[in-house]
Amino acid sequence: MPERLIYERLKPGDDALREECGIFGIYNADGSVESAECAYYGLIALQHRGQESAGIAVSRGGRIDYEKGMGLVAEVFKGGLEKLSGAKAAVGHVRYSTTGDSMLANAQPLVISSKSGQIALAHNGNLINAKELRQELENSGAIFQTTIDSEIIASLIAKNSAGGIVEAIKTTMGILKGSYALVIMTPDKLIGVRGPKGIRPIALGKINGNFVFASESCAFDTIGAEFVRDLRPGEIVCVDGDGLKSYQGPRSEETSLCIFEYVYFARPDSDIDGISVYKARERAGELLAAAYPVDVDMIAEVPDSATPAALGYAAKSRIPYKKALEKNRYVGRTFIQPFQDKREIGVNLKLAPLRRNVRGKKIVLVDDSIVRGTTSKRIIEMIKLAGAKEVHMRISPPPIISPCFFGIDTPSHDQLIGATNTVEEIRKLIGADSLHYLSIGDLLRTVEGAACNFCTGCFGGEYPQDVGDLLKNARKNSLGGKC
Amino acid sequence: MPERLIYERLKPGDDALREECGIFGIYNADGSVESAECAYYGLIALQHRGQESAGIAVSRGGRIDYEKGMGLVAEVFKGGLEKLSGAKAAVGHVRYSTTGDSMLANAQPLVISSKSGQIALAHNGNLINAKELRQELENSGAIFQTTIDSEIIASLIAKNSAGGIVEAIKTTMGILKGSYALVIMTPDKLIGVRGPKGIRPIALGKINGNFVFASESCAFDTIGAEFVRDLRPGEIVCVDGDGLKSYQGPRSEETSLCIFEYVYFARPDSDIDGISVYKARERAGELLAAAYPVDVDMIAEVPDSATPAALGYAAKSRIPYKKALEKNRYVGRTFIQPFQDKREIGVNLKLAPLRRNVRGKKIVLVDDSIVRGTTSKRIIEMIKLAGAKEVHMRISPPPIISPCFFGIDTPSHDQLIGATNTVEEIRKLIGADSLHYLSIGDLLRTVEGAACNFCTGCFGGEYPQDVGDLLKNARKNSLGGKC
Amino acid sequence: MPERLIYERLKPGDDALREECGIFGIYNADGSVESAECAYYGLIALQHRGQESAGIAVSRGGRIDYEKGMGLVAEVFKGGLEKLSGAKAAVGHVRYSTTGDSMLANAQPLVISSKSGQIALAHNGNLINAKELRQELENSGAIFQTTIDSEIIASLIAKNSAGGIVEAIKTTMGILKGSYALVIMTPDKLIGVRGPKGIRPIALGKINGNFVFASESCAFDTIGAEFVRDLRPGEIVCVDGDGLKSYQGPRSEETSLCIFEYVYFARPDSDIDGISVYKARERAGELLAAAYPVDVDMIAEVPDSATPAALGYAAKSRIPYKKALEKNRYVGRTFIQPFQDKREIGVNLKLAPLRRNVRGKKIVLVDDSIVRGTTSKRIIEMIKLAGAKEVHMRISPPPIISPCFFGIDTPSHDQLIGATNTVEEIRKLIGADSLHYLSIGDLLRTVEGAACNFCTGCFGGEYPQDVGDLLKNARKNSLGGKC
Amino acid sequence: MPERLIYERLKPGDDALREECGIFGIYNADGSVESAECAYYGLIALQHRGQESAGIAVSRGGRIDYEKGMGLVAEVFKGGLEKLSGAKAAVGHVRYSTTGDSMLANAQPLVISSKSGQIALAHNGNLINAKELRQELENSGAIFQTTIDSEIIASLIAKNSAGGIVEAIKTTMGILKGSYALVIMTPDKLIGVRGPKGIRPIALGKINGNFVFASESCAFDTIGAEFVRDLRPGEIVCVDGDGLKSYQGPRSEETSLCIFEYVYFARPDSDIDGISVYKARERAGELLAAAYPVDVDMIAEVPDSATPAALGYAAKSRIPYKKALEKNRYVGRTFIQPFQDKREIGVNLKLAPLRRNVRGKKIVLVDDSIVRGTTSKRIIEMIKLAGAKEVHMRISPPPIISPCFFGIDTPSHDQLIGATNTVEEIRKLIGADSLHYLSIGDLLRTVEGAACNFCTGCFGGEYPQDVGDLLKNARKNSLGGKC
Repeated sequence: MPERLIYERLKPGDDALREECGIFGIYNADGSVESAECAYYGLIALQHRGQESAGIAVSRGGRIDYEKGMGLVAEVFKGGLEKLSGAKAAVGHVRYSTTGDSMLANAQPLVISSKSGQIALAHNGNLINAKELRQELENSGAIFQTTIDSEIIASLIAKNSAGGIVEAIKTTMGILKGSYALVIMTPDKLIGVRGPKGIRPIALGKINGNFVFASESCAFDTIGAEFVRDLRPGEIVCVDGDGLKSYQGPRSEETSLCIFEYVYFARPDSDIDGISVYKARERAGELLAAAYPVDVDMIAEVPDSATPAALGYAAKSRIPYKKALEKNRYVGRTFIQPFQDKREIGVNLKLAPLRRNVRGKKIVLVDDSIVRGTTSKRIIEMIKLAGAKEVHMRISPPPIISPCFFGIDTPSHDQLIGATNTVEEIRKLIGADSLHYLSIGDLLRTVEGAACNFCTGCFGGEYPQDVGDLLKNARKNSLGGKC
Repeated sequence: MPERLIYERLKPGDDALREECGIFGIYNADGSVESAECAYYGLIALQHRGQESAGIAVSRGGRIDYEKGMGLVAEVFKGGLEKLSGAKAAVGHVRYSTTGDSMLANAQPLVISSKSGQIALAHNGNLINAKELRQELENSGAIFQTTIDSEIIASLIAKNSAGGIVEAIKTTMGILKGSYALVIMTPDKLIGVRGPKGIRPIALGKINGNFVFASESCAFDTIGAEFVRDLRPGEIVCVDGDGLKSYQGPRSEETSLCIFEYVYFARPDSDIDGISVYKARERAGELLAAAYPVDVDMIAEVPDSATPAALGYAAKSRIPYKKALEKNRYVGRTFIQPFQDKREIGVNLKLAPLRRNVRGKKIVLVDDSIVRGTTSKRIIEMIKLAGAKEVHMRISPPPIISPCFFGIDTPSHDQLIGATNTVEEIRKLIGADSLHYLSIGDLLRTVEGAACNFCTGCFGGEYPQDVGDLLKNARKNSLGGKC
Repeated sequence: MPERLIYERLKPGDDALREECGIFGIYNADGSVESAECAYYGLIALQHRGQESAGIAVSRGGRIDYEKGMGLVAEVFKGGLEKLSGAKAAVGHVRYSTTGDSMLANAQPLVISSKSGQIALAHNGNLINAKELRQELENSGAIFQTTIDSEIIASLIAKNSAGGIVEAIKTTMGILKGSYALVIMTPDKLIGVRGPKGIRPIALGKINGNFVFASESCAFDTIGAEFVRDLRPGEIVCVDGDGLKSYQGPRSEETSLCIFEYVYFARPDSDIDGISVYKARERAGELLAAAYPVDVDMIAEVPDSATPAALGYAAKSRIPYKKALEKNRYVGRTFIQPFQDKREIGVNLKLAPLRRNVRGKKIVLVDDSIVRGTTSKRIIEMIKLAGAKEVHMRISPPPIISPCFFGIDTPSHDQLIGATNTVEEIRKLIGADSLHYLSIGDLLRTVEGAACNFCTGCFGGEYPQDVGDLLKNARKNSLGGKC
Repeated sequence: MPERLIYERLKPGDDALREECGIFGIYNADGSVESAECAYYGLIALQHRGQESAGIAVSRGGRIDYEKGMGLVAEVFKGGLEKLSGAKAAVGHVRYSTTGDSMLANAQPLVISSKSGQIALAHNGNLINAKELRQELENSGAIFQTTIDSEIIASLIAKNSAGGIVEAIKTTMGILKGSYALVIMTPDKLIGVRGPKGIRPIALGKINGNFVFASESCAFDTIGAEFVRDLRPGEIVCVDGDGLKSYQGPRSEETSLCIFEYVYFARPDSDIDGISVYKARERAGELLAAAYPVDVDMIAEVPDSATPAALGYAAKSRIPYKKALEKNRYVGRTFIQPFQDKREIGVNLKLAPLRRNVRGKKIVLVDDSIVRGTTSKRIIEMIKLAGAKEVHMRISPPPIISPCFFGIDTPSHDQLIGATNTVEEIRKLIGADSLHYLSIGDLLRTVEGAACNFCTGCFGGEYPQDVGDLLKNARKNSLGGKC
């Protein structure tokens, strides 16, 4: 999914959905690895979860130091990791940051000191009672320097730290509403936390006997660690010199993993809660083929994230899979504004039709989202101009018709094409010969066998928590991200 | 295959073969486009042909100006194109530059002034009589400021310019030996040239009635131009205010297009001399499947450039195509040195196994080259560690066993694994369960129907020209690039 | 004396004394100026007071935004001030930052939000009860994100804000010990504060009827404002839509302006508490000439900060003033490490002898400090090598023999040449023919007529407050800066 | 006077006169120094002679390599000198470059290869027959890649190299018209050349037995070399493994050193042709005092370059010298555009009045140029606003009334205030109470005893060579620089 995000960011305000954060932690018990470097490579593996800022905090000699900055992990740390080397433990964070004048202040991990000592905190998720909590804390004398939810969480932990860090976390979990996966570091402990509903993922790994936390298992492969297991909803896993201890914090009866991780955000080589992301996408393609067959010459995808779904569609339909579009892998983030209509050249620069493959052909084109429709429209035009006879769009998730309040930055309601148009209207708008989305039922079938339930709120399903007035306000505005 | 090159460049001196240049030109007869911007986007489409330096020269008000720099096109021109705007014509160049202390001086286009006025020149290829020509020119009083062949070509054109630019080019073509495709610009003309043997490609396109030249047709799609035709070997196409005129310069009876363009370098969405690059690769996969079948569970590729060949192999063998490896698209050029063995982490950062897909499986893994073997070895280890039972490598071109003197930067002889080892030795070295390369005969079959013959010199075939002592010297040293 | 500091910074850990901060504020009541631009130019005028970080916070539409960064003012804001434009008020800060991993977090102004709203705070000075206050605040539940005293002050103000901002400041002033001048901004007020002892300066100015605060009056000239008056010790000046109101906070009977501002730190074109910095230095030279006359051919100085003192010496002694040393004004901060002994080339690059002026001459060389002696030694060698017969050093302040706890970053005790050596020992060490410092008595005579008393603690005089254990600890370590 | 130049460059097109180049060379015969580092520090000492581009070429193992770039020396080589280390010899150049699209191509040293091998060439000066020579060379087949005179010189040397490099230089000197000082390097020789009229300076120095060339002697002090002597007009000094040999090339009977070097450009610590720059300026002040006395309270200068003249005026008139203006040394090249009238804030940022010194005083203010008058006007206003009763300007050189064709970039005729106004008109324009310039006669008296004659062309004196049509054309346009 990374490439897609970079691509989309070329067109501000356009066809993208953004995850808000990736988190990582390592406790280097035996000193056999370099904590900051593991965090660095782990964050590179999680880069698709946030490209606006990155940071690493380390614990070393009883003291927490950190470095953060705006940009990709490789940019922020291009000067090297010397200043962070030799650490007992490290916490890392990548973030899709909201805009604003003081973005760097909002970068994570957040490092604070309080009467119970220093804490570094990395958060993925979104609180739905942030405003109320912030007010309460201010009324009790707290001062804030950022606008991120993480500062609220840190304040609550500090405030409730009389009984030790684990108890403080438990108490805090009882107060927070919304989604959160956390990695918390004190000078001598590393703690992974998964929210009571398990909305955001976090997994436990191991390298040379040292424990590692990461938003997705793909980060383990990168550093040569092995996957141990996913954290349970409400679980607090604490690692220190005495090894690993697991505590059960507040846990909802109904857990609700964000199903969007599978269909869009997570890397295909990650497994989340027992389900392979690649397999879930492949299955989505198979179910699309079964539900919406069409007599065509070839199956193709909008590269790169829709490839597993396209292969699934091709396998099920027994129609050959071929490439219809070639990507220019050199289109990065820095190129100048084009002279023609910006979005069009954006697509042209990034994607080109494989004329010889599509000429005279009827094609199923699989994609993993239509957010506003402009990109899809342009791609279909491009393929038809290259000679395709028919283009049938198949979208691996259902249409997004409702905002997310749990960590995905969805556009405002009026900009969600799926919320304001019927499928037939969208089809016309993008110029496809047919258009079908996966149904919610089939979507849930792609993750059958998982150890949890799922949140399908953005597809019109139920939200896992009462979102109160938020939904009403969201009709008007983009929600922004607050991880 | 841009991505591959970026990837390989992370490991200096390692498993990469490098094209040396991409060239582009536009004559904006009716003023309907912005010449410099067309060149900019055209060069981005050709970026896979050279990533070390980029430049654009424009003709404006009877005068040629230019801007060049080290780095990717987007980096060199990140300040915008204002200084080059409003031009009648433009010439662009991307280059894989040799190392050296004065690299920028060698960036192209080369702009010179002589008694016949200013000339800008962009060159793709390599002269094999450069040393002799340089000496002769020096003896007749010429001075040189660069080490690139283009300065020799420009000097010859200037020297022979009494009868006008086209005659000067013709005379010069009679003197040059080696490979070259050129775009030449005077203050009022734009001229595309293809060498007598047609070794390096160059195509003619059109946008709004304005003519365009480019190394590959993919550049036309990017700017919205249409492909007109390939230049003929020895052809000189001159565009000016009076329209387009074609002249026939020296032409060899035997033409010899570089077949490596199809199997490795060119973008799959380009057509060269009537043959689709994608199709040629797909056909290579089919022929590999026919020649070297094996009973496996899935066909996969080393992403991304080997995908068409893998799809061809899968189609022919009727074995399912699945992804075995996931790329991290955020691994760019700037990240810090890793702590483990550098090459291994390089692969780990860039590629990760799709464990659920490969576990317990017998796999055919298609790639488009093995240069030194280190990367292949590491990938096979990675996939087996992820649980694969067998890994059978299939390489879409034959082994490279001889250096190229016509524009590809091949490693020195002793570093070409194919030149110093048998296929069985390579198989053992990389740890594959079986290994097969396409034969030269089958390779030529992938481009059947082309309007030309092919150079297969690097695969042990015949060179299109007598390379004299060059071959002997090449046993010891890398050739470097000189476009 | 900015130049001196830049120069010294080329030689880390060497012969420099550093002021810690400059502060600035403007309340743009009538909208006739651009607040952020006034702050920008004001900070450039105060740049000599801190070169490590800079920041500006603005109040606009009821909300405070800010931008800060590491480096000089011109570097931090090289992208322009657009993001801060159109503001009602602005607060700016320049800082000599302590080293550490998280320097940016410590940049000022500090912007916080609390139950009483947002506050931006810029601080010059140093608290001597910081450790105790931090602990008390943490015990009452506060969390800290920085290591600067300013966060303590902001926390106390927030905590005591029930009766409004002015009352909160008054209460806070009763708690703080040490030195401070503050500019505080709320969304609708701008407040200047001078500590009860008046150790650090702060002045009030006016431009087009809009009030301005600055550490030194030189900032007023730069933006075209006029000097109104210095703040009184313990004074709180509050500016808002209703105009200016002055409140008297806690005030010591004995006020103690830092005398080092005159002899070393402040700009010569500033007036502080009624005394011209230039005149005080000129007077120091006169008093040196009276106390330590010597029969020489010329009076010269170490450029540039000792010029007024050298002119004073020359006038009093009636011996001609001539230049002995020329500065290279292009020696900036970024040049590469030299090949010879680093300090020597540092001096050679920066200063060159005027051979024709010094050859065969007996010279009095006036300087404004000898911190460790290495630079003085090198300069004397250089002038003698150029042919001078005798070099008599005259130092405008007395030797520094004790650390400062009120805002100057003095080296650790064992590195203060004046604390560990007699004047005669220093003379031998630096190779001067004679060496004399101004006496404390004469030093106080340079500022005769001032409206206040002075702190002469670093010269072995009395500290204005009981510094407790700090002095004992300071024998071992550099104090660092905390403004 | 570097600072002045930086200052002036803040106001494009304004009150500055610019030298065009500084050159440097070292032949490291005994390997006891690092050639590239000597060149680097030598260029830093010559930085006032050109701030737009810098370059160093080195000879190493029979081969010449180089690095050049836009910006100050410290910026161009901020990455270090590793690539140039271990060299036998080095040539360096700093340049004030003309504007244009391809400025970097024009940076020096120019490095070429020809039948007689490689040559690196650094040039200070300006040819007046450049156009004719360029045409002749083009007609004989030469091609050019730059617009600098140096390429013409290099072409002529290469063309005439049959008899060896020294003969080639001699022949070339017979062809060139205009001013030039050259440092030329072949793989085994280093050669310093002074033009037949000696218009531009070049000196010979020695460090550890290794010879050094530099535009000014100040470069020798910086690297610890000693001054040996100035080159004679027409002299060719060739250094190689066999030591130093001097040859006499063409020499004019009338030599004409540029007198502007003394009054404006050179560093005060340089000696040129036996005359101290500092002393010449001091003498200018004395002569001004004698010729134009006035009853005032103090003598001051516009800092920093006019200081020696002000001290000379003060000494002669027996009126006290005091500072009237303080400079802000942090005003560099990168700060943002000010909000008020740009020139005014430019002065305000850079210079501030010392109010206490000037209030109620009659002042003589010495400066070393009035180019367009705007800066002088603003400074006088500023001082009067600060309370001065009278300001009497005294300018150390005579008014510039004619363009320079020999290496100084003078504004176009209509922008030379001295060419288009009487002294009285200028006085009114700048608001001075009186204004006097040094006479040409007195100017020549400042350099009495020199071993040469002087060019006073820009002051209305005779040009040392017939400038033909150049003067006519110069009435309209700025001449630009071509060193």
